[in-house]
Amino acid sequence: MSRPIVTFTTDFGLADAYVAEMKAAVLRVAPEAALVDVTHLIAPQDVLAGSIALERGVRAFPVGTIHMAVVDPGVGTDRRILLCKVAGQIVLAPDNGIITWTFRRFDRVDAYELLWRPSVPTSNTFHGRDIFAPAAGLIAAGRCEELAKSPLREPVLLNVAPAKSLNDAVVIHIDHFGNATTNVPAELLTPRMSVEGVGSMRRTYADVASGEPLALVGSSGLLEIAVRDGSAARSLRLSIGQSIKIASGGA
Amino acid sequence: MSRPIVTFTTDFGLADAYVAEMKAAVLRVAPEAALVDVTHLIAPQDVLAGSIALERGVRAFPVGTIHMAVVDPGVGTDRRILLCKVAGQIVLAPDNGIITWTFRRFDRVDAYELLWRPSVPTSNTFHGRDIFAPAAGLIAAGRCEELAKSPLREPVLLNVAPAKSLNDAVVIHIDHFGNATTNVPAELLTPRMSVEGVGSMRRTYADVASGEPLALVGSSGLLEIAVRDGSAARSLRLSIGQSIKIASGGA
Amino acid sequence: MSRPIVTFTTDFGLADAYVAEMKAAVLRVAPEAALVDVTHLIAPQDVLAGSIALERGVRAFPVGTIHMAVVDPGVGTDRRILLCKVAGQIVLAPDNGIITWTFRRFDRVDAYELLWRPSVPTSNTFHGRDIFAPAAGLIAAGRCEELAKSPLREPVLLNVAPAKSLNDAVVIHIDHFGNATTNVPAELLTPRMSVEGVGSMRRTYADVASGEPLALVGSSGLLEIAVRDGSAARSLRLSIGQSIKIASGGA
Repeated sequence: MSRPIVTFTTDFGLADAYVAEMKAAVLRVAPEAALVDVTHLIAPQDVLAGSIALERGVRAFPVGTIHMAVVDPGVGTDRRILLCKVAGQIVLAPDNGIITWTFRRFDRVDAYELLWRPSVPTSNTFHGRDIFAPAAGLIAAGRCEELAKSPLREPVLLNVAPAKSLNDAVVIHIDHFGNATTNVPAELLTPRMSVEGVGSMRRTYADVASGEPLALVGSSGLLEIAVRDGSAARSLRLSIGQSIKIASGGA
Repeated sequence: MSRPIVTFTTDFGLADAYVAEMKAAVLRVAPEAALVDVTHLIAPQDVLAGSIALERGVRAFPVGTIHMAVVDPGVGTDRRILLCKVAGQIVLAPDNGIITWTFRRFDRVDAYELLWRPSVPTSNTFHGRDIFAPAAGLIAAGRCEELAKSPLREPVLLNVAPAKSLNDAVVIHIDHFGNATTNVPAELLTPRMSVEGVGSMRRTYADVASGEPLALVGSSGLLEIAVRDGSAARSLRLSIGQSIKIASGGA
Repeated sequence: MSRPIVTFTTDFGLADAYVAEMKAAVLRVAPEAALVDVTHLIAPQDVLAGSIALERGVRAFPVGTIHMAVVDPGVGTDRRILLCKVAGQIVLAPDNGIITWTFRRFDRVDAYELLWRPSVPTSNTFHGRDIFAPAAGLIAAGRCEELAKSPLREPVLLNVAPAKSLNDAVVIHIDHFGNATTNVPAELLTPRMSVEGVGSMRRTYADVASGEPLALVGSSGLLEIAVRDGSAARSLRLSIGQSIKIASGGA
């Protein structure tokens, strides 16, 4: 069997020991696991942003990967814990909508409620370390069958979805560079289209002059708005949830 | 033998190559080691904050783990280097007080002065890379006996300790979320107690309304002050070293 | 064969899934690889800063290490991709000058243009994930010979070089602590020299009082200007490219 991979998507930041404590809990059960950070800089309690990062993780990693997504404002309450099977991978996450973008973009997601709990006492404030990580460790160690679970018909979903028509286009993510990702899949786009205030579709950043805005298909297969060598979010004042106007021809 | 784990707690930040240079030095000696960051965002020279993060690491990781804690303003001087055995794990750190919180919270810490030095010349400014990391690598490679050391009776300790009574309560750490950890162990607390300006003890964040403050036992077994979906440090103007008033009943 | 090491130097930041997506692409081909971040906090498009960090990585890691350096404003254009052999290690990077500091400081760098491209379609905006990472994976998996390449006589180089005389001294890097690294190799320095506005050469930070400036040979073997327990960049208003005046005796 190949070395198991466990990934981490959280809002824990990088200044505290929290991320390491989760990793320790995984390594206790699965010492051979490869641990990969997706990000820990999700803004506190920003479930939507966690959802977008998680989906990119699921898209990128190979079959067998285990993803922990822990943006969990309801920790310690009776909110359910999800175990999802998608693309031959496993996602462990609170059932608070963080699965949304994965659920919307993959053809099939099998959702379960994780009923398993560790035999030792757990904190009420850090299930990432005390429940999610030991569960991920058991899966990584090939002991998935120890995890009691039951099918969960309707996981909590946020109100965001891939656009079905150009009228539905909204910004769903602003990245580190200030590039804005929208919910518009490449399949809805043609090279003749243009974005209002931005211009016609381009292939890559260097297709416009430095400082100029452009629209292109980004690396997740979605319409992206960028400024070459700059920040589209700042220059064009883009924000999450904002509508984008797309015209079908010319600039 | 299980794969050795080496952890890192530093004030090196994440913008430079320093952390990677330390890891390279470990991997040169122990290529199979699993390397885990505790944090590199300790504020420059903040030995107390490093001490708190290190203790959480020691508490979380399994027997056999090697922890490097390098917040080291006295690098290149005659300050001693500590090698401590605690809970079946090893800590390597400058003898400047960074061991304090581990020393205070664990029943037994065996402290030694590390006398070993590499046979190659070392820099005067980066012992994390040139001494601590090769030493950690030797331990990880099962060659601990090559490291000359002598017992050290009195490691340098900072003036911070777990509260022995409610009158000693002070803030010792502010985390990424703005939650304030105090030095009050859960053993001193009862559900009837309350914190002045905060309210009575709760189980978890969602036990109060969004934006409201609460007191609870945090994930390290210490009294924590939080604001649900917010920053207690900002809302309640909490800072390190600040006294906390705890009343034994009612709010 | 020892476990292969792959390092990452980018301007991708830590808030998005990009770094993890690159790592996933490496692990798909080389599941046993040890993945080490050099830094992802290079300022967007700052090829010089990436060049400095990369060189420190090459200097630190053992023979056989594969370094990916992806600060790549020209992604998706016809800019070439470099594969360099240096010190028994491999560097994969865009041919945009990011190899400069490694090229200048190592005696021998064998540069090639990477002609290999994956058989699957690649994005136009994320070659780090779609070309560099799979190539790094193939090398890590011992399949370097699958990567078609041709010798490249003149890689793009930035206008920065180690000082040949004291008159050439400039600041090339400001680190997390505010220490300023210059381009002056230790070989040009003697203990009697002094830096204008800073003072005579010292051994280590604690050789001056807290808050005082000092000049010393830093951990990369270059002249460094620091302020003990402070930021030289802020106190002395140092910036990248700034000339430094060095006098051969006294303070």
